[in-house]
Amino acid sequence: MIRTGEAMAAENIYYIGLDLGCTFLKYALGASDGSLIVKKKTPSRADQAQSVIFEVIFSAIEELMEEAKTRGGKVVAIGLGSPGAVDFKKCRLIGNTPNLQSWGNAEIRKTITGRFGLPIWADNDANVMALAEATQGAAKGYKYVIALTLGTGIGGGILIDGEIYRGINYAGAELGHLSIAYDGHPCNCGGRGCIEQYASAPAMVRNYLDKIKDASEEVTTITIFARAAEGDQSAIETIDETAEYLGAALASIINTFNPEIIVIGGGVADAGEEFLTRIRHAYEGRTMKPALKGLKLVRAKLGNDAGVVGAISLAKKMYEQSQ
Amino acid sequence: MIRTGEAMAAENIYYIGLDLGCTFLKYALGASDGSLIVKKKTPSRADQAQSVIFEVIFSAIEELMEEAKTRGGKVVAIGLGSPGAVDFKKCRLIGNTPNLQSWGNAEIRKTITGRFGLPIWADNDANVMALAEATQGAAKGYKYVIALTLGTGIGGGILIDGEIYRGINYAGAELGHLSIAYDGHPCNCGGRGCIEQYASAPAMVRNYLDKIKDASEEVTTITIFARAAEGDQSAIETIDETAEYLGAALASIINTFNPEIIVIGGGVADAGEEFLTRIRHAYEGRTMKPALKGLKLVRAKLGNDAGVVGAISLAKKMYEQSQ
Repeated sequence: MIRTGEAMAAENIYYIGLDLGCTFLKYALGASDGSLIVKKKTPSRADQAQSVIFEVIFSAIEELMEEAKTRGGKVVAIGLGSPGAVDFKKCRLIGNTPNLQSWGNAEIRKTITGRFGLPIWADNDANVMALAEATQGAAKGYKYVIALTLGTGIGGGILIDGEIYRGINYAGAELGHLSIAYDGHPCNCGGRGCIEQYASAPAMVRNYLDKIKDASEEVTTITIFARAAEGDQSAIETIDETAEYLGAALASIINTFNPEIIVIGGGVADAGEEFLTRIRHAYEGRTMKPALKGLKLVRAKLGNDAGVVGAISLAKKMYEQSQ
Repeated sequence: MIRTGEAMAAENIYYIGLDLGCTFLKYALGASDGSLIVKKKTPSRADQAQSVIFEVIFSAIEELMEEAKTRGGKVVAIGLGSPGAVDFKKCRLIGNTPNLQSWGNAEIRKTITGRFGLPIWADNDANVMALAEATQGAAKGYKYVIALTLGTGIGGGILIDGEIYRGINYAGAELGHLSIAYDGHPCNCGGRGCIEQYASAPAMVRNYLDKIKDASEEVTTITIFARAAEGDQSAIETIDETAEYLGAALASIINTFNPEIIVIGGGVADAGEEFLTRIRHAYEGRTMKPALKGLKLVRAKLGNDAGVVGAISLAKKMYEQSQ
C-alpha cells in the first residue's frame, strides 16, 4: 500500500547544510533523503566582525528557505560545520578559532534559532565531514569509521557505532595532533611530532624543498606528485616518507580504535590510488594483526561537498531523533 | 516502605570473578553490590594443556558456588578477565595468547556455561581492569576513562560513556602499542616505537642499564626509584625520560579521546605521587588546551584485586542487562 499523503509530506521536508570556512560559506538545501537539491557558496567575510559573518549566514538561510518554499516545501532544521571546537550540546564555539578570529565563542543556536525559529545543530568541520562520508560517501553503511583530511592541516573525525565521537569537552578526535615522534617537529598546538607537521600539504612541500635545497621554488603537492611521476627522486622520496609517516600514525589509530574503514580526504589524497596503496603498506607493516582483519582504506568521495552534505546529515539525524 | 522479601533476594545473589594470568588464576565471590566476599588464588598451570587450565577454572567455580550456598545464596553469573583478544559476543579467545600458549582459541562460554549452566562474560584483562577502576576504584563515577597498566607490558583500557570500548573485531584499546617514535625501537607486535618499548618495567630497566653501562646488574624498577631517591643521576634521568615518553603517548591519547580521567596502574605506577606529577607535567606541555580542562590523572586503587573486581563488575553489568 502506498500512502500518498505520507510520501508527499516527506518530500516537502528540507534541510539546510552550512559549511563555514575561512574563505567561503558553502550552503546547500537537502531533500528528506539527505541528497543535495541546491548548492552555492559566498565569501564568508572571515576578516570582519562576528555580526558580519552571521549576516552572511542569515542571507544564505533566507535564500534557501525561499528555495524550499518555491518547491512547495519547508525547511525543518539546519546543520552547520565550523572550524574550532564546538560545544555540541549548547551549539556554540568553545574559545577561539585561529583562522576565523572573530568567530570565537559564537552563539550559533541562540543567534540562528532566535532569528528563524528553526532548530540548528553545529559541530566541528572535520566531524561533519566524517559524518558525510559515513552517510553519503565512501564509508556509507560503516559504523566504526576514521576520517582524515589532509590539507593545510590534518583534520580528524571518528565515528563509533555510527555516532560522531566528541569526548567529554568536545575536544576529541584531533587526529592531526597525534604525535609520531616524541622529540620531533614542534607543532602550533604546543605539542611535538604531530602528524600534521609531517603529512599535511605544507609539511610535504617543506620536506621536498629541504631535499632539493631550493626554498625559493613555488611548489604544491600537485607539483610534487607530478614530478614523482616523471621520476624526480626527491619527489619520490617525499611521497614515500609521507606515506610512512601516515602509516605510523594510522598504526596507532588502528591499534587503538580497531575501525572498519579509514577514509582519507583532502588535497593530498587526490593524488590517487597508488599513494593510498603506499599508506596501506606502511600501516600494515606496523599494526597488530587482529585489528587489520577486514580493514578498508579508501579515498573520500564527496570532495568539496563533504561539508554541506555532512551538515545536512547532522541536521536530519538530530531532527529525526528530536521528533 | 521496606520490602524485606526483595532486599533478601538481592542479598542472596552472588557473582564469580575470575582473573586468569600466566602464573595464577585469581578468583573471588562478589556480593550483589559488587564488593568482594572471598578472594583466593591458585596456580593457573599455564604451561599445560587447555583442558588442564579449564580444570583449574572449574575447581575455582565449584569452590565459590559452594561458598555462596553456605551463605544461603546462589551464584547467578560469572565474569572472566583473560590475556589476549577476546570475542566479547561469542565469549571465546581470538587466536593465540603468547604468554598462555595452550589458551589460544579457548571456547570460554561453551565450556563453562556447558558445565555449570551459568551465564559467563569474558573480556581482555586490561579492559576488565579499566572497568574495575571505573566501578569500584580510582575512576568511580567517571564515564570517559583511560586506564594504562605499566608492568611487563603496557595494557590499555578505554571506557566511553561508561562502556568498555572494544572496536569492530575486539582488537582495540591496545594503548601499549601506540607509537611515540615512527623510527624508534622495534616492538614484538611488529610495530616501531610502541610506548611499551619505552615505559614498561623492562624498558625502564633496559634504559637504566644502558646509562650505567653494566648489563650484568640485577635491577628492577623498585631499585631505580630507590636509587633516584638517593640521588643516583642515571636513575633520575631514567625516571624523567620515562615520564616524558608517557607524556608523549598520553598527549596523543588526550587529543584523540578527550577523557575525564586517566588511571595509571601496575608496578611502575606504585612509585608514587611524584612520578605521576612528572607524567602530568609532561603531557600538559604537549596536549591541546581544550582537552586538558578538568582532566584528572590518578593512580589505580585496586592493585592486585583489579582483575577479579572487574570480572565481577562485568558479570553484574551484563547479568542485569540480560534480566
